[in-house]
Amino acid sequence: MKACVVAVGSELLTPFRVDTNSLVITEKLNAIGCEVRLKAVVGDDAHELASVLETALGFADLVVCTGGLGPTQDDITRDTVARVLEMPLVLDETIEERLRQRFARRGLTMAEINRRQAMVPLGAIALENLNGTAPGLWIDRGDVAVLLLPGPPREMGPILDHVVTEYLAPKAGGTRLFRRVLKITGRTESDVDATAQPVYTRWLTRTVPISTTILASLGQIELHLTAASSAEDEARVGLDEAVRELQAALGTSVYSSDGSALEDVVGHLLRGRGLTVAAAESCTGGLLTSRLTDVPGSSAYVERAAVCYSNRSKVELLGVSESVLDAHGAVSEPVALAMAAGIRAAAGADVGIGVTGIAGPGGGTPEKPVGTVAIAVVTPWEEKVLVFWFPGSRDQVKGQATQAALNMVRLLLQKAQRGVAKRP
Amino acid sequence: MKACVVAVGSELLTPFRVDTNSLVITEKLNAIGCEVRLKAVVGDDAHELASVLETALGFADLVVCTGGLGPTQDDITRDTVARVLEMPLVLDETIEERLRQRFARRGLTMAEINRRQAMVPLGAIALENLNGTAPGLWIDRGDVAVLLLPGPPREMGPILDHVVTEYLAPKAGGTRLFRRVLKITGRTESDVDATAQPVYTRWLTRTVPISTTILASLGQIELHLTAASSAEDEARVGLDEAVRELQAALGTSVYSSDGSALEDVVGHLLRGRGLTVAAAESCTGGLLTSRLTDVPGSSAYVERAAVCYSNRSKVELLGVSESVLDAHGAVSEPVALAMAAGIRAAAGADVGIGVTGIAGPGGGTPEKPVGTVAIAVVTPWEEKVLVFWFPGSRDQVKGQATQAALNMVRLLLQKAQRGVAKRP
Repeated sequence: MKACVVAVGSELLTPFRVDTNSLVITEKLNAIGCEVRLKAVVGDDAHELASVLETALGFADLVVCTGGLGPTQDDITRDTVARVLEMPLVLDETIEERLRQRFARRGLTMAEINRRQAMVPLGAIALENLNGTAPGLWIDRGDVAVLLLPGPPREMGPILDHVVTEYLAPKAGGTRLFRRVLKITGRTESDVDATAQPVYTRWLTRTVPISTTILASLGQIELHLTAASSAEDEARVGLDEAVRELQAALGTSVYSSDGSALEDVVGHLLRGRGLTVAAAESCTGGLLTSRLTDVPGSSAYVERAAVCYSNRSKVELLGVSESVLDAHGAVSEPVALAMAAGIRAAAGADVGIGVTGIAGPGGGTPEKPVGTVAIAVVTPWEEKVLVFWFPGSRDQVKGQATQAALNMVRLLLQKAQRGVAKRP
Repeated sequence: MKACVVAVGSELLTPFRVDTNSLVITEKLNAIGCEVRLKAVVGDDAHELASVLETALGFADLVVCTGGLGPTQDDITRDTVARVLEMPLVLDETIEERLRQRFARRGLTMAEINRRQAMVPLGAIALENLNGTAPGLWIDRGDVAVLLLPGPPREMGPILDHVVTEYLAPKAGGTRLFRRVLKITGRTESDVDATAQPVYTRWLTRTVPISTTILASLGQIELHLTAASSAEDEARVGLDEAVRELQAALGTSVYSSDGSALEDVVGHLLRGRGLTVAAAESCTGGLLTSRLTDVPGSSAYVERAAVCYSNRSKVELLGVSESVLDAHGAVSEPVALAMAAGIRAAAGADVGIGVTGIAGPGGGTPEKPVGTVAIAVVTPWEEKVLVFWFPGSRDQVKGQATQAALNMVRLLLQKAQRGVAKRP
């Protein structure tokens, strides 16, 4: 099966937005062996959308449109698709009633304009949208199928999943793509590539060939492994072995091979050992704790955190001594250690984290340029402090500092788990 | 002038890559008044590329292609464009010589395959690539023009700049696009649209027409206004007036019209009045303070914050009384108020913020479902507490709660600025 993905919305034609829905759609379609051959972004112009739809229908069996299903006049997808497919639009009373009820539940009366969202091409299957007002639409004409999805990702996702399972997977059959992702931190892209290349090159020519893509962003590198096979077991076995070989080559810098984020891995390690954590953040301004608490159920192990921007708060809340601050400066190993130890003691937590640095753009000096960050982790059995220099803008420095801090916690916990650590 | 941007390359049709070249191209084209009407990504398939090029030529004066100009058989852009435009391909000896010299400088002999890169459609202008082997190509046929650019951003950029200055700006003939963005929070999309539509519809037909796009995400709505004009002053005057009218219609829910984020606006208000702020966060887990400290220079007014996940930390750090916690539960107006007052007192700050809620996915009850968040703001002259219900996932609830908290601070500070507030 060949697919085209068409995103509709003039805002996606500005220099400010990229269509990221198509990545999610591609992933789900690839998983059932459906290839994406064209991605297009068109504005809110019925003539141009129609022209693109005709092109797409010319070489694909499946056209997936996102966006343009809202209630306003800008929302042209429903009408244009109906016109191109020569299907009359009719009012679907079930959808209309569902919309009225949705508004009523929130104490609102449905505006007349929202009735537009209940218009469907005759013969289309309406797909309930649990997270918004615009229903999805599935139109199967035998030789071609068209799927209309709302643009907001949280509305699009569940409808897409439903359609893939219920309608597309049975149509697809045959070869499917299987993927695994290795997530790596603490190494450079060229270093990872130099180490991994001899391994993944071998896998290109196996019975079940596995291709590898390397994807780097600040503080994180991902290796995406893709196997094409009609036999799920065969693909799994190959991928598992390739993952093991790459992990052996790359060592502890690989923090996950199942899609988990670094905060999930850290959370899992803390939970597994029944440990609690507390953080003292300066330059990361709360982002580290926000990441720790992004994990559902993290209240079981996140005790508290203090964001101490002022020196006064470092003294009052964390017991960092004025003399240490004066002698070494706020951005220094001794202060990071004192912050970690201070919050750990105040919270009665097992693990304490201290982060202090210069996120920029101001505040740098020749000795401590913007991007200098000292990070300390204190546990009952070991403490560690490191000074990093991170490139980039204020938010990029913040992001990399949280990544490095979480990674230090991970490495200390994993080392203890392996029993290498000295126990108190 | 209307443009289509076509990116060529199968790797851009995987779930891992987005075409970001098109954002740079859009920005440069918009600056000279050239609108982008379609963006497409196609794989290395000549038939499909031809079909997309024909569609693009059907409604654009300018087609910009990136990628597919390399020396291998996968690189199909040059041949396909020549075929679609019915121009014979001829060997350009200047390019061939330049390629040979480029290889010679690096001590290499040019492979025969690289001669493909010296083939150009008869009549095309070859554009030197200072950072790679593939030259760009500029084909001007009067009614339509086609520009071929290499895919790697550092090769593409300089050639694009050259073409914009030398060939496109003179063709564009004066009309340029000017933009303004109104950012709004605390209202629904349909409510904003119903209020704003009568205003922006009028602006569509003025001497300098202004088109408006509405962009909604959880907790934020943006109105993007675009004026097309040859006279910058005229466009500015029109946009200023449209912005004023929309602000008058939408009232205080508009928090910025210059691109500022909500945390910038709050920071500016705090700085302007010489006030400091401290936050006590439960369900937002540090994200509120991370946003406050995303603003460069925020150390001038962010005193500290406490992330109090445990009841114990709420009692110890914020002085929330156990009896209030027992009587009302951790997620309640009295606890939010006690948290805001507690952190304000502890920090000696002017403004205190308290946020407590259920981010989910667990922890909800029939009375207090997931997404229930109580937010309090305490200032020297007024205090305010509200309970919200936010839809969505854990991180979406966190995001909306920080947006609502920042907005409450903004509204209190702006009200005080207008002198409406009772002073102590």
